[in-house]
Amino acid sequence: MASAEPESAKEAPPPPPSTAPRGRVNLSLVDFGLRFVLFAAAVSSVVVIVTSKQTVVGKLRGVPPGFPVQAKFDHSPAFIYFVAALSLAALYGLVTALASVSVIAKPNLSTKFLLHFAVWDTLILGVVASATGAAGGVAYIGLKGNSHVRWDKVCYAFDKFCRHIGGALAASLFASVVLVLLIWISIISLHARIRK
Amino acid sequence: MASAEPESAKEAPPPPPSTAPRGRVNLSLVDFGLRFVLFAAAVSSVVVIVTSKQTVVGKLRGVPPGFPVQAKFDHSPAFIYFVAALSLAALYGLVTALASVSVIAKPNLSTKFLLHFAVWDTLILGVVASATGAAGGVAYIGLKGNSHVRWDKVCYAFDKFCRHIGGALAASLFASVVLVLLIWISIISLHARIRK
Repeated sequence: MASAEPESAKEAPPPPPSTAPRGRVNLSLVDFGLRFVLFAAAVSSVVVIVTSKQTVVGKLRGVPPGFPVQAKFDHSPAFIYFVAALSLAALYGLVTALASVSVIAKPNLSTKFLLHFAVWDTLILGVVASATGAAGGVAYIGLKGNSHVRWDKVCYAFDKFCRHIGGALAASLFASVVLVLLIWISIISLHARIRK
Repeated sequence: MASAEPESAKEAPPPPPSTAPRGRVNLSLVDFGLRFVLFAAAVSSVVVIVTSKQTVVGKLRGVPPGFPVQAKFDHSPAFIYFVAALSLAALYGLVTALASVSVIAKPNLSTKFLLHFAVWDTLILGVVASATGAAGGVAYIGLKGNSHVRWDKVCYAFDKFCRHIGGALAASLFASVVLVLLIWISIISLHARIRK
């Protein structure tokens, strides 16, 4: 356990027994990479949905010809929640990516960080998954409509708007998967430390 | 570390170093209790939404008087996903509550179980949170409507149906919170074992 890295041992005080050997440093790198990917996915998702504004004239059924109709994400509370949740996830991804760098630089901090990461990742996963579900549920009505309550589909008219919503949903689904992977990495790292 | 419980030490072979002292057994009991609560909440949620069927005559605007209109959960894909997700969560809660009993009976199994619980809890949290979001997003349109795309509110007519949906959503939100607590317990238990 205390065989490798004689160079750093000269400079720093001897690390506590829970410090990282080589395999664990690699997991820290994966953790950093995934947090950066989470940030990138969440930012893309927010940018794509915020830029989804579309105005159509004479395309939507039931609207008089010549009368313009606009689709914007903030016309639906579900999409507003989606933007708020993904913005939070982007900020969280950025902050924890920076924190993850400090873990790579000082591996003897990593056990405490793993605990905090895992606890907060779980909350953010709940927020991002529910936002993806809410926006997805509303987007599906826009795409297919619901004849039982006479909610007409609108995506045949707002084609660009719906493409943007779809892209944002794909990015947020990806961000949810990344969050699940991050929690798994934390849990498996914590578990691996017990055995050693 | 090896001070307490001389009674059980006589009957069983000496446990490995990661075995539970008294404080950890209590967390196992909390874990079991929360898994049972998860099961109960998920079953309630499914029962409440499945029994939400309502038929109204002459209440919904735009429908000719004397023409009956029915509201059922399976008229919306979001509610069908919700029922599937919460049924899965109920089954999962039951199975893991039983597994949790075996951990209480044999505490030296608990480290392995904690790992598996935490990994699966994370997945189920993602499923339950997204289902809650999807059903909530659709239910909100039913409650408030969306004037921008002329989706009329329907809850003024389907009052019983919407009350049931609201109850099911409250139960599933509660189940999500329970899942977050379960993951936190697993993570904190794993972390506590490193320090000892």
